[in-house]
Amino acid sequence: MTSSLNEFLTTRKKDIEEYLFSYVHELHVPENLKSSMLYSLKAGGKRLRPILVLALMNAYGKREEDGIPVGCAVEMIHTYSLIHDDLPCMDDDDLRRGKPTNHKVYGEATAVLAGDALLTESFRLISSQLSGDISPNQKLRIIDELVKSAGALGMVGGQFDDMEAEQRQVSLDELESIHARKTGKLLTFSVTAGAILAGASDDDIEKLREFSYHIGIAFQIRDDILDLEGSEEKIGKRVGSDTANEKSTYPSLLTLSGAKDKLNEHITRAKEIVSGLQLEQQLLHELCDLIASRDH
Amino acid sequence: MTSSLNEFLTTRKKDIEEYLFSYVHELHVPENLKSSMLYSLKAGGKRLRPILVLALMNAYGKREEDGIPVGCAVEMIHTYSLIHDDLPCMDDDDLRRGKPTNHKVYGEATAVLAGDALLTESFRLISSQLSGDISPNQKLRIIDELVKSAGALGMVGGQFDDMEAEQRQVSLDELESIHARKTGKLLTFSVTAGAILAGASDDDIEKLREFSYHIGIAFQIRDDILDLEGSEEKIGKRVGSDTANEKSTYPSLLTLSGAKDKLNEHITRAKEIVSGLQLEQQLLHELCDLIASRDH
Repeated sequence: MTSSLNEFLTTRKKDIEEYLFSYVHELHVPENLKSSMLYSLKAGGKRLRPILVLALMNAYGKREEDGIPVGCAVEMIHTYSLIHDDLPCMDDDDLRRGKPTNHKVYGEATAVLAGDALLTESFRLISSQLSGDISPNQKLRIIDELVKSAGALGMVGGQFDDMEAEQRQVSLDELESIHARKTGKLLTFSVTAGAILAGASDDDIEKLREFSYHIGIAFQIRDDILDLEGSEEKIGKRVGSDTANEKSTYPSLLTLSGAKDKLNEHITRAKEIVSGLQLEQQLLHELCDLIASRDH
Repeated sequence: MTSSLNEFLTTRKKDIEEYLFSYVHELHVPENLKSSMLYSLKAGGKRLRPILVLALMNAYGKREEDGIPVGCAVEMIHTYSLIHDDLPCMDDDDLRRGKPTNHKVYGEATAVLAGDALLTESFRLISSQLSGDISPNQKLRIIDELVKSAGALGMVGGQFDDMEAEQRQVSLDELESIHARKTGKLLTFSVTAGAILAGASDDDIEKLREFSYHIGIAFQIRDDILDLEGSEEKIGKRVGSDTANEKSTYPSLLTLSGAKDKLNEHITRAKEIVSGLQLEQQLLHELCDLIASRDH
């Protein structure tokens, strides 16, 4: 990783977390509910989704600060989805990033409600917390994108199909459709929301939507590879769990080296799209490389 | 009930349901997920929350049709909250309005996701489905109201405190604070959103917020009374369940006749507030009477 990318990731992660934790901390809501919300928000993670929002604004030469509430909104959505996915009736996970999952600490009922609360609150970060320089129509467009990315048309629908596909063989097309929604759509939201905030043209936004599709698939392939080759310490969960759960993955359908080839194809395509746009390309290219080679 | 009120309730319920079911039906989402969402949306109910949105627009002489997407949004939120509240880890209810609850039919995982999907989708009804006569700033203000009413500051927070208060004696103030959020805030949303759509003044909106507080408390007291005096057939659940669950209720804290007095006080106060406003009052007064005397 270049030192400029490292600097970007470190400083922006800090800015995002500062805003996110203090926003939730200041809400006048029941203490234990707040504590459960903050527990999962603070459980770490790379903050990749908010980082992408800011990276797009940066690439267009806009004031990144104005994107922080949108970045925190998508991080809240990501966090709520992890809390609900970990529930006993869903994936029944006791550990997440090496720490007890929300329902193991706060109980299932509170975990359901903390998820509901984070999901709901995320929309207010967009409707009411953005700088006055962002027009009402930009805000509404971002809300529309968030619903399509996070709801039944996107992440929730992908999670549903993933559940239905468990323990049966799925085709590569099915696998791609599931991941494009379950993990890909929130990444798409981050990219398109950053572009909308930056005032990008509709044409740019559609090209960036395609860019985000490729990094989303690449992200998922890397995840599957890490489940085979990664370090348990770094990824914070048992390695080999996909195989143990008989889950269809890119390596199981394409072989490990086939999966690595596919990962590279998607990253190459993503970079080509960026190269065709009138914006500062280096940071976005570096983020593509990071997604392809991350170790957690 | 007057025949004009009956006519209003019947026609508007039909309009709302038509829009609501067809909107969800047309979503390109996994079939079983959609089926689970529609199952609970179609499980009936009075559609009181959307009716209130339209009643406010009617009282201000505005085109009610323009309020239907907002009415459907609040009905989606109400429905998601019932699905999640019925889960085994929450109230563990097998029946709702005389029919099996969502998770009894579709399983817990699907019920969690159907709730998440309804909650998320509700925001798009406001961001993207309203008439062009409603300004972007009105839409954003309605979204802000919806988050505050439905999230940790409102309904979700009330549900959380209600859970924590179970099986212990609570004070009347605590009970009121819980209900004002758990059931009251969505009614407040309906009233204020209708007023915002109608272009009411800020002063009117604040008075109507107070109005909605009183009808919210009255609604809950009536609920508690119906649990003691109601017909199982009409309310669609076992009568006496609050007593069996040792729940604190208005009758248990104030006696049955004390609760009836308090109900009347709140309805009287609500009507007085309406009488002080420059709008068509009859419909709102009739709705107050309906809330006070409903048998289900």
